[in-house]
Amino acid sequence: MKRAAIILAGGAGTRLWPLSSDDNPKQFLRLFDGQSLLQKTYARLLRSIAPELIYISTNERYRAKCVEQLPLLPKDNILTEPARRNTAPAIALCMFEVEAREGDAVVAVLPADHFIADESAFLRILGRAYQHAESSDDLVTIGIDPTHAETGFGYLELGEEIAQQVIRLKRFAEKPSREKAEEFLAAGNFVWNGGIFIWRTSVFRAALESAAPRLATVTRANYESMESISIDYALMEKAPRVATVRGNFGWSDVGSWAAISKLIAKPNANLHTADAANVFVIAEKPVAVVGLSDVAVIDSPDGLLVLDLRKSELLSAVVKKMP
Amino acid sequence: MKRAAIILAGGAGTRLWPLSSDDNPKQFLRLFDGQSLLQKTYARLLRSIAPELIYISTNERYRAKCVEQLPLLPKDNILTEPARRNTAPAIALCMFEVEAREGDAVVAVLPADHFIADESAFLRILGRAYQHAESSDDLVTIGIDPTHAETGFGYLELGEEIAQQVIRLKRFAEKPSREKAEEFLAAGNFVWNGGIFIWRTSVFRAALESAAPRLATVTRANYESMESISIDYALMEKAPRVATVRGNFGWSDVGSWAAISKLIAKPNANLHTADAANVFVIAEKPVAVVGLSDVAVIDSPDGLLVLDLRKSELLSAVVKKMP
Repeated sequence: MKRAAIILAGGAGTRLWPLSSDDNPKQFLRLFDGQSLLQKTYARLLRSIAPELIYISTNERYRAKCVEQLPLLPKDNILTEPARRNTAPAIALCMFEVEAREGDAVVAVLPADHFIADESAFLRILGRAYQHAESSDDLVTIGIDPTHAETGFGYLELGEEIAQQVIRLKRFAEKPSREKAEEFLAAGNFVWNGGIFIWRTSVFRAALESAAPRLATVTRANYESMESISIDYALMEKAPRVATVRGNFGWSDVGSWAAISKLIAKPNANLHTADAANVFVIAEKPVAVVGLSDVAVIDSPDGLLVLDLRKSELLSAVVKKMP
Repeated sequence: MKRAAIILAGGAGTRLWPLSSDDNPKQFLRLFDGQSLLQKTYARLLRSIAPELIYISTNERYRAKCVEQLPLLPKDNILTEPARRNTAPAIALCMFEVEAREGDAVVAVLPADHFIADESAFLRILGRAYQHAESSDDLVTIGIDPTHAETGFGYLELGEEIAQQVIRLKRFAEKPSREKAEEFLAAGNFVWNGGIFIWRTSVFRAALESAAPRLATVTRANYESMESISIDYALMEKAPRVATVRGNFGWSDVGSWAAISKLIAKPNANLHTADAANVFVIAEKPVAVVGLSDVAVIDSPDGLLVLDLRKSELLSAVVKKMP
């Protein structure tokens, strides 16, 4: 059975202001030795999947960026959403397009904007997930071994092992409180939901028809009339047969400057400091930091951010209030 | 007797990086409602002195800036130093030029780059200093009532009152240690040396011939061969007859971003904060500050500074190490 992938590259956000913007969201920022997360995600999948079977789901406004950043991508494999309706309509539209082109195939759906340090470990886990999706009627998701009691992610509660490395999913758990997160970590059978799904086209269609019949009728023509809803809510939480392959592959959602500062450790020749430690700088001109530690200084033509790295989560609210 | 003034506007420095530079030093920065300290100093003197008797001592490279910022200044009143030799040769050359033009006049010599909040109080004190210089053979200096035990300024130790508001100077005291500064403040007869001097041309010449005979021969032709030395060292500390008029007129040497942040309190529409207080920003684009208080963020095309305002004094060393 053909193995395909859909990279979700339509997102926009405020958490990496002033570098990210609606015109240039996180997945396109070339922060990793000159590569973007989209480029790294694409290159990673190329190690397992033929380029003609890797699709990009994105917004029309990002088409030119995708073409520019992914020279190996066939132009026809850019699938654009007619409107912003969250992940469920976007994924459904893409899945049906892939089904129309390829027949029954097994498809991985992955975010464009996550970082994975151990690519070989990830590809082994992804391979196992493809295998299980090929040989069962399960929707398969990849669970990320938690490294700490994170309150910013959703969790997957795992049940019994149903095949080698494959575990039956008990339930999706929302972003927890601090106490709940500690409980999850201690319990051992909770993993982070990284939003990576693997399923056959036919299994996906049947599951969607059962869980969200209206969504299963999505076309470009009726797209704007679809409910704006995530794939977790619309499908995964309602599906009776979900399986998880779990693993540890140096994953980061790159969801804050604090996260990025841990991924990019190289010294910055533009930085000059006194009485300062753990300073993360992105700037094209000389920067002096005096008397401040654990800070990020991010300069761009659009704005300037000075952030206590221990308070990254407060940035989004500030940016949303800007005129 | 004619009253004249020489504004010393040749200085360069690193303490206000990245706004100040050798090409655009502190006295020319338009930080005060669009006015520079040079402009404010000039406008203040215009309240007491005719424009044809106000001179600017500066470096040739700053001539154009002086012309641009001071439209009332006669072009002939820009007196440039042929080389950088600190304040003593520069002041001597200017004084002799003023003497050649005006004969025996009484001249105030003042830095271009200090801030004075209470201009009327300052002009009253300056007027008393002019009077005393006119009616005696004293070199006169203005002493600034100290507001705290500052270790960054030199002090004047005062003796007996010799005329109304005029006090005999005992000695110049170097920048003190913390303990000494506390002692000075407690003693009550120590004031800050703001580098403002008032003297007759003839009294200045005689004092210089006695204290620094070689300097008293300065001309444009031999200027480069002069010792690089401050007027305090070359003349004032050696002169037997120095008098002081002291006062409190809201003076600041504007010697650090911490000092400027106290002078410019207006809110900045470009600033957006979360969990932050006492943030001083100069920037032409949006700035977000998250989780940091008592900081200055200064953006310019030349560089970017992020500074704990309580550690302003560390900036100079950082800037000097820049390539």
